[in-house]
Amino acid sequence: MRTVYWDYESNTVKLIDQRKLPFVYEVAEFADYKDVARSISEMYVRGAPAIGATAAFGMALAARQSNATMKHKLMRELEEAASILNAARPTAVNLSWAITRQLQLAGDDIYQSVDDVRQALLELAQQIADDDVELNRRMGFNGAELISDGDTILHHCNTGALATVDWGTALGVIFAAAEQGKNIHVLVDETRPRLQGARLTTWELQQRDISFDLIADNAAGHFMRTGQVNIVLVGSDRTAGNGDVANKIGTYKLAVVARENGIPFYPVVPTSTVDLLLAHGDLIPIEERNQNEVLMAIDRPIAPSGITARNPAFDVTPHRYVTGIVTESGIVYPPFQRNLRAAVEASQRGEWRQRN
Amino acid sequence: MRTVYWDYESNTVKLIDQRKLPFVYEVAEFADYKDVARSISEMYVRGAPAIGATAAFGMALAARQSNATMKHKLMRELEEAASILNAARPTAVNLSWAITRQLQLAGDDIYQSVDDVRQALLELAQQIADDDVELNRRMGFNGAELISDGDTILHHCNTGALATVDWGTALGVIFAAAEQGKNIHVLVDETRPRLQGARLTTWELQQRDISFDLIADNAAGHFMRTGQVNIVLVGSDRTAGNGDVANKIGTYKLAVVARENGIPFYPVVPTSTVDLLLAHGDLIPIEERNQNEVLMAIDRPIAPSGITARNPAFDVTPHRYVTGIVTESGIVYPPFQRNLRAAVEASQRGEWRQRN
Repeated sequence: MRTVYWDYESNTVKLIDQRKLPFVYEVAEFADYKDVARSISEMYVRGAPAIGATAAFGMALAARQSNATMKHKLMRELEEAASILNAARPTAVNLSWAITRQLQLAGDDIYQSVDDVRQALLELAQQIADDDVELNRRMGFNGAELISDGDTILHHCNTGALATVDWGTALGVIFAAAEQGKNIHVLVDETRPRLQGARLTTWELQQRDISFDLIADNAAGHFMRTGQVNIVLVGSDRTAGNGDVANKIGTYKLAVVARENGIPFYPVVPTSTVDLLLAHGDLIPIEERNQNEVLMAIDRPIAPSGITARNPAFDVTPHRYVTGIVTESGIVYPPFQRNLRAAVEASQRGEWRQRN
Repeated sequence: MRTVYWDYESNTVKLIDQRKLPFVYEVAEFADYKDVARSISEMYVRGAPAIGATAAFGMALAARQSNATMKHKLMRELEEAASILNAARPTAVNLSWAITRQLQLAGDDIYQSVDDVRQALLELAQQIADDDVELNRRMGFNGAELISDGDTILHHCNTGALATVDWGTALGVIFAAAEQGKNIHVLVDETRPRLQGARLTTWELQQRDISFDLIADNAAGHFMRTGQVNIVLVGSDRTAGNGDVANKIGTYKLAVVARENGIPFYPVVPTSTVDLLLAHGDLIPIEERNQNEVLMAIDRPIAPSGITARNPAFDVTPHRYVTGIVTESGIVYPPFQRNLRAAVEASQRGEWRQRN
């Protein structure tokens, strides 16, 4: 089962409603791209790669919904759909990356009829989704070289099959190490406020029978300082050209404390998440989400009524705290400015597909 | 209203049941010292100074419950009560500090009859409670010198009136700065897993009409790195002779990130919490509490059933991350080994009482 996919019988976008996991497993179905945009902003689906694939399917859905018979009219509608989907969440670069690819494809003169465009958009969305799975597996086995038998891995947020189309990024490295037969243990940050670690990462590890303990985010420092963590693995929602990493709120604190204790800190990042045009991380827009996420745990109030909260969803980890970045093109080490560009270009040439 | 007090009409120990705040305000009443011990381990009452006063009242209650008519028989019963109360929680030094004071007092030959001992234990418990309030106010105004008009203060856990008999330690500094008319804002760490920040600190700040925002513990690093925090204030459950500080889990990460960003980090610590006999913080026993605290938020499950969690309740912040330690004897700066001892001795001489 994939996190997001096109249903070729009903011609709808289907995705696992992750807001309800692990208590209810439910697949939501969307026949309107505006609802797909809402599913991204309301976090039915989250995780940069999954958001990218969802937006690509959303564009295919927008083309299918259109009544246009002339291509120039369809293009205007697709541009509007692109703008609505793009606004769903600001931080993950995969969102605009997938939408831009779809718009460019639709605009290509080789597609003359609206039906040609519809077909092309669906095919590219499907390819983005399929590529994501294959690429994640490659990335996972690249990163698994960093994991030794007996290691305890500290992990933040959810970066597994649910954050991608399937398999995962940082959690994909853990899955790969487990498939290699390595004896590993995972400390799972619960990841307030939305508890993606407590709800989703535990659920995925439980299904794969990998040893883990859930911890409060506050406890990560204690386990690092007392020698109980060998490596920290996280995802990334957008990585700047210099290696600065925007990821789920709390990542920055982990990185600082990891370096302070000599523990390697590796973001696991498909190159589609690398934004070479951004010189550094402080140029990355940080989404501030609804304060109710902080005032509640899942749907239960945890604080007095009538108070206010701040809720930045991401933070930026400057590259000086980053040991290396695991990509589908291999593990990238400093200087990131040069080496990340090389990894992105290698990926664009499709080199990762050619490895075994 | 005090957090814990002796009811002279019913001769019982009464305390606010903090597990139910901020949703229900309820005062629990105990006529058996074993229930007082349970109220400490189950966290009806928490915070090192409040635990100390509660244990002192618990010893007075044990003396009152006793049927002994001979002092040597009462002493044996008091020693058993001391051992039960001491075992309620392992980390806060105030617990054993208060119990030891009571046992020593009871053993003093000037008290011959069991009634003399009963009266003396109640008087000392009352004095420990009264002193705590007065001492906290002194400490608060000592620390308020560190706060400038316009400052934003990052605060962890609850260190207010509810963590003490009244007024508070780190939060007491904030109250003092507010009483001085300084315009301040507080970022309140929610403090998983038990959410003392979200439930208790917000409640106290709201009652005093001090400006604040609740944040997820994960967000503290983001606010520090982006220049939105001027000072970090925390409490301490036990401070070693060299200035290493054991405090609520998550404190260590804050201290490391504060230093990394040049933000001053001050524990606010009554000298009764300083354990000069401990050479360094890694000798402090760290309580690991029930994993259900991590698997739930208040009383709602947040994770799949059948999984395990780790739940260290405290961590140790090495003194190299500590800018200074606010005490009732003034603000102590490095070298802590020498200067903490001087502060403890000054307090034992009662010097803080003589200041205005």
